[in-house]
Amino acid sequence: MKTILTYGTFDLFHIGHLRLLERARALGDRLVVGVSTDKFNEIKGKKTLIPFEHRSAIVAGIRYVDLVIPEKNWEQKIVDIEKHQVDIFVMGDDWKGKFDELEKFCKVIYLERTEKISTTQFKQAEYLDEIIENLLM
Amino acid sequence: MKTILTYGTFDLFHIGHLRLLERARALGDRLVVGVSTDKFNEIKGKKTLIPFEHRSAIVAGIRYVDLVIPEKNWEQKIVDIEKHQVDIFVMGDDWKGKFDELEKFCKVIYLERTEKISTTQFKQAEYLDEIIENLLM
Repeated sequence: MKTILTYGTFDLFHIGHLRLLERARALGDRLVVGVSTDKFNEIKGKKTLIPFEHRSAIVAGIRYVDLVIPEKNWEQKIVDIEKHQVDIFVMGDDWKGKFDELEKFCKVIYLERTEKISTTQFKQAEYLDEIIENLLM
Repeated sequence: MKTILTYGTFDLFHIGHLRLLERARALGDRLVVGVSTDKFNEIKGKKTLIPFEHRSAIVAGIRYVDLVIPEKNWEQKIVDIEKHQVDIFVMGDDWKGKFDELEKFCKVIYLERTEKISTTQFKQAEYLDEIIENLLM
């Protein structure tokens, strides 16, 4: 059995997240996903709209995901690789080269991000207000 | 085998969507979800941020969903109920009473919406810009 591991914040779950999880899972038999906690994002200076509890529930609801774990710090990756007997560590290629040191512990693959969300769509700010209103209903 | 049917737009997929799909699926053995097309939303005067192709792919990626079909008009529900041999038609209780006429064809259940996205979070507009920037990366 081949176990895959990836990490992410998964704020406002979108098609890029889905495709990355799908392609990561296709590399093996079992996909473990570390979802960054709100506290860890705070440390990283990363602001999110959706709280950890919701972000991790949505990732766990994706059919390609076998296990969700919280990502609490930069150092836990080696521990997670050993604990979950990970064969392949996968990240999007926006992280290319950043995790090469993990090659001592498992295979490291950077997946090309193929789908981009259209800038135009997100910049239609007049729509955004209405959508947020709908989300709150 | 009990088949459940629901419809929605599922723009910016969030925890409320996930919980509704989970609870709908728990009412039976097979969940069919109609996702509103962009053209149908246009007819309804509903603006979305995420295109149909992405919205429907995300819904299809949810583990509780067995089949996604496009929702193209108001009239197709009766046809879908017969075609997919639906036992229970489910909607959120924001639609309460609106689909009672379908009781001639199958059971109709309105599920209480239990989780609300915090207004405060979404109204932190200073965060929103950054998050959208991140989505575009």
